[in-house]
Amino acid sequence: MSAPVAARRHPTSAAAYLPPPDGRLDLVQIGDVRLESGATIPDVHIATRRWGELSAARDNIVLVEHALTADSLVTGPGDPGRPAGWWDGLVGPGAPLDTDRWCIVATNVLGGCAGSTGPGSAAPDGRAWGSRFPGISIRDQVTAERTFADAIGVARFAAVVGGSMGGMRVLEWLVGDPDRVGAALVLATGARATADQIGTQTTQMAAITTDPDWQGGDYHETGRVPLHGLGLARRIAHLTYRTEFELDDRFGNAAQAGEDPWRGGRYAVQSYLDHQAAKLAARFDPATYVLLTDAMNRHDIGRGRGGVAAALADVRVPTIVAGIDSDRLYPLHTQAELAEGLPGCSGLAVITSRDGHDGFLTETTAVGKLLVETLDLARSAAD
Amino acid sequence: MSAPVAARRHPTSAAAYLPPPDGRLDLVQIGDVRLESGATIPDVHIATRRWGELSAARDNIVLVEHALTADSLVTGPGDPGRPAGWWDGLVGPGAPLDTDRWCIVATNVLGGCAGSTGPGSAAPDGRAWGSRFPGISIRDQVTAERTFADAIGVARFAAVVGGSMGGMRVLEWLVGDPDRVGAALVLATGARATADQIGTQTTQMAAITTDPDWQGGDYHETGRVPLHGLGLARRIAHLTYRTEFELDDRFGNAAQAGEDPWRGGRYAVQSYLDHQAAKLAARFDPATYVLLTDAMNRHDIGRGRGGVAAALADVRVPTIVAGIDSDRLYPLHTQAELAEGLPGCSGLAVITSRDGHDGFLTETTAVGKLLVETLDLARSAAD
Repeated sequence: MSAPVAARRHPTSAAAYLPPPDGRLDLVQIGDVRLESGATIPDVHIATRRWGELSAARDNIVLVEHALTADSLVTGPGDPGRPAGWWDGLVGPGAPLDTDRWCIVATNVLGGCAGSTGPGSAAPDGRAWGSRFPGISIRDQVTAERTFADAIGVARFAAVVGGSMGGMRVLEWLVGDPDRVGAALVLATGARATADQIGTQTTQMAAITTDPDWQGGDYHETGRVPLHGLGLARRIAHLTYRTEFELDDRFGNAAQAGEDPWRGGRYAVQSYLDHQAAKLAARFDPATYVLLTDAMNRHDIGRGRGGVAAALADVRVPTIVAGIDSDRLYPLHTQAELAEGLPGCSGLAVITSRDGHDGFLTETTAVGKLLVETLDLARSAAD
Repeated sequence: MSAPVAARRHPTSAAAYLPPPDGRLDLVQIGDVRLESGATIPDVHIATRRWGELSAARDNIVLVEHALTADSLVTGPGDPGRPAGWWDGLVGPGAPLDTDRWCIVATNVLGGCAGSTGPGSAAPDGRAWGSRFPGISIRDQVTAERTFADAIGVARFAAVVGGSMGGMRVLEWLVGDPDRVGAALVLATGARATADQIGTQTTQMAAITTDPDWQGGDYHETGRVPLHGLGLARRIAHLTYRTEFELDDRFGNAAQAGEDPWRGGRYAVQSYLDHQAAKLAARFDPATYVLLTDAMNRHDIGRGRGGVAAALADVRVPTIVAGIDSDRLYPLHTQAELAEGLPGCSGLAVITSRDGHDGFLTETTAVGKLLVETLDLARSAAD
């Protein structure tokens, strides 16, 4: 499941160590990560990529936070056999994340399956972690990122940006370590998981964990992988990512070309969901899907901080909060709560899209504009 | 899976035969049913219940059409161990479906698992139909109901009413046999399946058919039933039936009482979905779920009739079309299309509810009002 990696490195001093500037995958060993639950994951490595050069003042690093099934490959083509970057066109010379000025860094999340330590990685005994991998939270993911930043000698990010689960990490950075963030973009996410989100997410987890190939989570060395369950989870999730009018405009109740639903064939939308399921199953570890989905269930920026409003009230970082008007998984009112609660936010930005939640990936023009505005805030904050 | 039944009867003449007037379950043998596909289901029996007396002119029969997982038990308590009726409070002396005046008849749908012939019934060879049960459409369900009406000697219904899948059958009655319908109530449904509906429905079907206990659909005599898959399907479906604000108001991200999601416990909304899944698994046949869900995929009032608009344009039956403002599975615009397309409809009725699609079951006051209005139309049509 892991992408090919050239080498593992360990920074040997507090001097800034960064991955190569061409977007190649690199690994950084960050040592132990202690979790909210009290458990510790030993000897964690974090997969990372970089685009653009570090300034002499080390003040131009932008941390880009990926969503549930993405990874550090913000812009492609990256490694052979991998899909294109999830924000292709938004990173590069002259692009919104302008590599002529900014040093763009992305990591694969703790618990991920694209290079970072996760359930499919080898535990200290050499066998896959599997069910022994402890449950984590979004806050734990950011603890790992903070440890990563320490390890590579980065004291402060000019900006932290991301959408969906990536936006949750941006929020944890903002609330947990505001002094290390110059500006932020929080896209298509909320202050805490809603009942609706937990409902669909626990259903997706159940689809995987009731697949007989799940084997209690210890399937990695058995040759059997719960891909049926993962595919089901993706079908369920994908419908929440899109909108009913967009799907109906594209597919209606048409049959898939060359197939007859009255004789065992599929509908066009069914084939589309099958395709989404197969694409994910070809590249993603079901145990990571379960682990990160459960982390999203636990997402609550107010936990242990006197509630959401209290947690947000102390954050002075200049922040843009944006949502998509047709998002049925993270509806606009969940971003409105953030925009109102964050003193550094001047109001909710609304992206008009027919793509629903996926708009944070597909509406590249609107997202690019927000990224430029965020970096303008970062520049102002640095002046 | 079948409810207990007193006796099987076969009407012996064209004289009206009706089930007992107290809501007890009865079976009527209707002979063969020829399907749209060209296949024939032999020796079909239909489960039915009645409340109220038939008028001398036989002009007071109201056919009540149930949704996917309901049955002929419109009002409870019915048989021991069965849930209460799905429109409890709406049927009885002085109720909207007033049994002092109207003769209320409900049937379990063709392919159902509450007494009518379905995949769990014995085929002519004495073994369960299982995978040999042919695929059916909503139109086929109404063909069976028409045959049932012929069998019991009912030439015309004063009204036909129903919501969701039940509303689809009302539409097929209206378009396919308008002369036999005096008035109609079409609730929370659309003219054809949308891509979004087919997307979630085929996902639910996949949840069941990828359960190893499915056994290709031939599990009925094996002692193994794909209840995990059925439970998953129900969890997926139930979220589409409700709304995000209603769920969040009730459950938020709270833990289930006495459980800790950080230590293997469940969230309150997760426990709620588990409960919905277990309730359905205790009473419903997964093969019927798959069969009827696929029938909903095929729902298209315009198929073979020159499209939706042409199909609706010739229907002069006085009809009320109603939707729920928060319905995210059958959004209001799908009822608006029906209201505009049906010449006998004077405009869309909107039910205000926070319950989403389930509002057609929970908003009994509003639904009762619509039923009264429908029966007023029936009375006017008869005058």
